[in-house]
Amino acid sequence: MRSHSRFVLSLLPVLTAACGTAPIQRAEAEAVLTAQAECWNRGDLPGFVSGYWDGPELTFLGGAGLTRGRADLLARYQQRYPTAEARGTLRFSVVDHRDLGDGHALLLGRYELERKDPSSGWFSLVLARQAGRVVVLHDHTSESPR
Amino acid sequence: MRSHSRFVLSLLPVLTAACGTAPIQRAEAEAVLTAQAECWNRGDLPGFVSGYWDGPELTFLGGAGLTRGRADLLARYQQRYPTAEARGTLRFSVVDHRDLGDGHALLLGRYELERKDPSSGWFSLVLARQAGRVVVLHDHTSESPR
Repeated sequence: MRSHSRFVLSLLPVLTAACGTAPIQRAEAEAVLTAQAECWNRGDLPGFVSGYWDGPELTFLGGAGLTRGRADLLARYQQRYPTAEARGTLRFSVVDHRDLGDGHALLLGRYELERKDPSSGWFSLVLARQAGRVVVLHDHTSESPR
Repeated sequence: MRSHSRFVLSLLPVLTAACGTAPIQRAEAEAVLTAQAECWNRGDLPGFVSGYWDGPELTFLGGAGLTRGRADLLARYQQRYPTAEARGTLRFSVVDHRDLGDGHALLLGRYELERKDPSSGWFSLVLARQAGRVVVLHDHTSESPR
């Protein structure tokens, strides 16, 4: 058995790789949103977008349909929110966190944009790890009817 | 080494359990939507809803906000689409399929409701396996502006 135990121990890195990365805890997920809101509220849209997956796998579904990749997402934000008045003050509140296994999590919540013409709605985020960091792999955001 | 091989083989069920269920292929995911559209188009809303996860973990984000569980989802559909005229003819088209690992997949696409007052929009689905069947664990659907 001693030989077996050593053998199983030697398999551990293989098992870890096969079974994916560590679960994304709710606090880690919320920290991504907190950092994004801080960037937004100081007008740093590139910083805001750095909370998303870096690569063509990133997808965003919003009022304008489907956007792929950080560059297009940033361009869309810059076009739609060019001024501090348009950006307003962004607040996120998380309503649900679900571990999907294999280093993925689902996060549901609400956003509020406090400004002259206020806006609020719901989001569904699929989170993943990229180079160890927790990032948004998919974002579906829909504005609530006013 | 022969003894090691036998030992690794004996570990396979443990590995399978630890690493989750089989990936959800695109064809399997699309079959769920095809079956749902067939139910919808013959007015079978309970059949339509049986494509969703059975349990309180099921979440649906739509125009009316967050709905949890099949019973509430069915009630919502029955209230909103009481007649064949309201239900119209439903068509789904899948735009993106992503394996999330551990028996989960992300499916993005469009729906179209052909009726007197047509409606269309986007959906994001998180799919999972429940008792071997592929079902929708989370649905975020948003109507496109007309």
